[in-house]
Amino acid sequence: MDLARVVGTVVSVVKDPQLVGIKLLLIRPVDPQGQFTGSAMIALDAIGAGPGETVFYVTGKEASFAFLPEHVPADVSVVAIVDHVDESTDARGKRRQT
Amino acid sequence: MDLARVVGTVVSVVKDPQLVGIKLLLIRPVDPQGQFTGSAMIALDAIGAGPGETVFYVTGKEASFAFLPEHVPADVSVVAIVDHVDESTDARGKRRQT
Amino acid sequence: MDLARVVGTVVSVVKDPQLVGIKLLLIRPVDPQGQFTGSAMIALDAIGAGPGETVFYVTGKEASFAFLPEHVPADVSVVAIVDHVDESTDARGKRRQT
Amino acid sequence: MDLARVVGTVVSVVKDPQLVGIKLLLIRPVDPQGQFTGSAMIALDAIGAGPGETVFYVTGKEASFAFLPEHVPADVSVVAIVDHVDESTDARGKRRQT
Amino acid sequence: MDLARVVGTVVSVVKDPQLVGIKLLLIRPVDPQGQFTGSAMIALDAIGAGPGETVFYVTGKEASFAFLPEHVPADVSVVAIVDHVDESTDARGKRRQT
Repeated sequence: MDLARVVGTVVSVVKDPQLVGIKLLLIRPVDPQGQFTGSAMIALDAIGAGPGETVFYVTGKEASFAFLPEHVPADVSVVAIVDHVDESTDARGKRRQT
Repeated sequence: MDLARVVGTVVSVVKDPQLVGIKLLLIRPVDPQGQFTGSAMIALDAIGAGPGETVFYVTGKEASFAFLPEHVPADVSVVAIVDHVDESTDARGKRRQT
Repeated sequence: MDLARVVGTVVSVVKDPQLVGIKLLLIRPVDPQGQFTGSAMIALDAIGAGPGETVFYVTGKEASFAFLPEHVPADVSVVAIVDHVDESTDARGKRRQT
Repeated sequence: MDLARVVGTVVSVVKDPQLVGIKLLLIRPVDPQGQFTGSAMIALDAIGAGPGETVFYVTGKEASFAFLPEHVPADVSVVAIVDHVDESTDARGKRRQT
Repeated sequence: MDLARVVGTVVSVVKDPQLVGIKLLLIRPVDPQGQFTGSAMIALDAIGAGPGETVFYVTGKEASFAFLPEHVPADVSVVAIVDHVDESTDARGKRRQT
């Protein structure tokens, strides 16, 4: 799973019936320091997140697991709001022999 | 899920029996401003989209969920026509400390 | 799904029992104009395609759907021979405001 | 599966109910020599790994297999702590005709 | 599926119970001419391959199909040893109008 910030919402009238009633978020991946690292994508909201919040999202078929027993045709879902990330001291690039 | 614009259609006579009767679209990913961001790919049409429309698509196994109970051998499906995208003010690259 | 051209075949004696009897193709992705866009990969043949033909292929678990009820351990399958692709006029990079 | 080193942990209060009680790790991919090769990502801990350990992780739906029969909405799980990697002599780039 | 050469093995004591008893290989992708094209990754051995052999591997959930009925948490499996690859004459980049 990757970190992202919610940066908007998406409005769609004509859509797959299983997507009806699910909030669509526009999210952008961020690194643990909150800086954008990738392009915006559309995600289903499984937990009630909103613009400005840092979240993490799941991709692939497992994105639809948050909506079981429905088999929602979706490949990105926001599944948690992140309170904080604890990085250990060697997390940002210092080499360590294993 | 990512945004795309429908840019054409694909004609195939010899194909997997489960693909018979499903419209094949040629789509190209776009960003929220409508600019192309990637190469064209083939997608199944689950909702009746046509050339020129902005849509979003699902990839992976979940692309076939739009056609359940059939297990269609497909990995990209158009599942919604996008009416508009609301971006919050910090969506395009301004850094924000989380 | 992406377009590809069949560029060869692969011979394997020692393989997973579920792959026995399935033709293995060497394919290379192409764009709608028939130009190679990626490296060669190995694909299962679900429809009887041969070298020189333009096809489209499915990746991921859904690649195995073409062989259900067997759960074939495969992640690329050729599922259709392409007759032609109709591109709309704005398909190759002209920006269009949505 | 790819090698990674555990570089931190992630705290989340609001999350999908199926993620409750599962430890969230921050991991970064490494090569067989222990040097970082990619960005940090969030992974579920299936085996009790901790910061500083070299592990390997599974991505995609199969990441949730470690938590069956629950269908956890997750796409990265740490499934093994690596004791050592034995590379054969031609592993780092020497060409060998097949 | 992609070609790879087996370049080593991986030893792990603490691991998911479903991985116990399965040989872990270190493999590196190669092109049809046997030249390395990507980084080393860890794969489950489904067929008895060893260092130096050219194989092809499956990624994603379907990698676990080789071990059904177990739902092994793995995303790369070696499923065939390659005897030879027959490339057609236009396989290496010559353009051909479709």
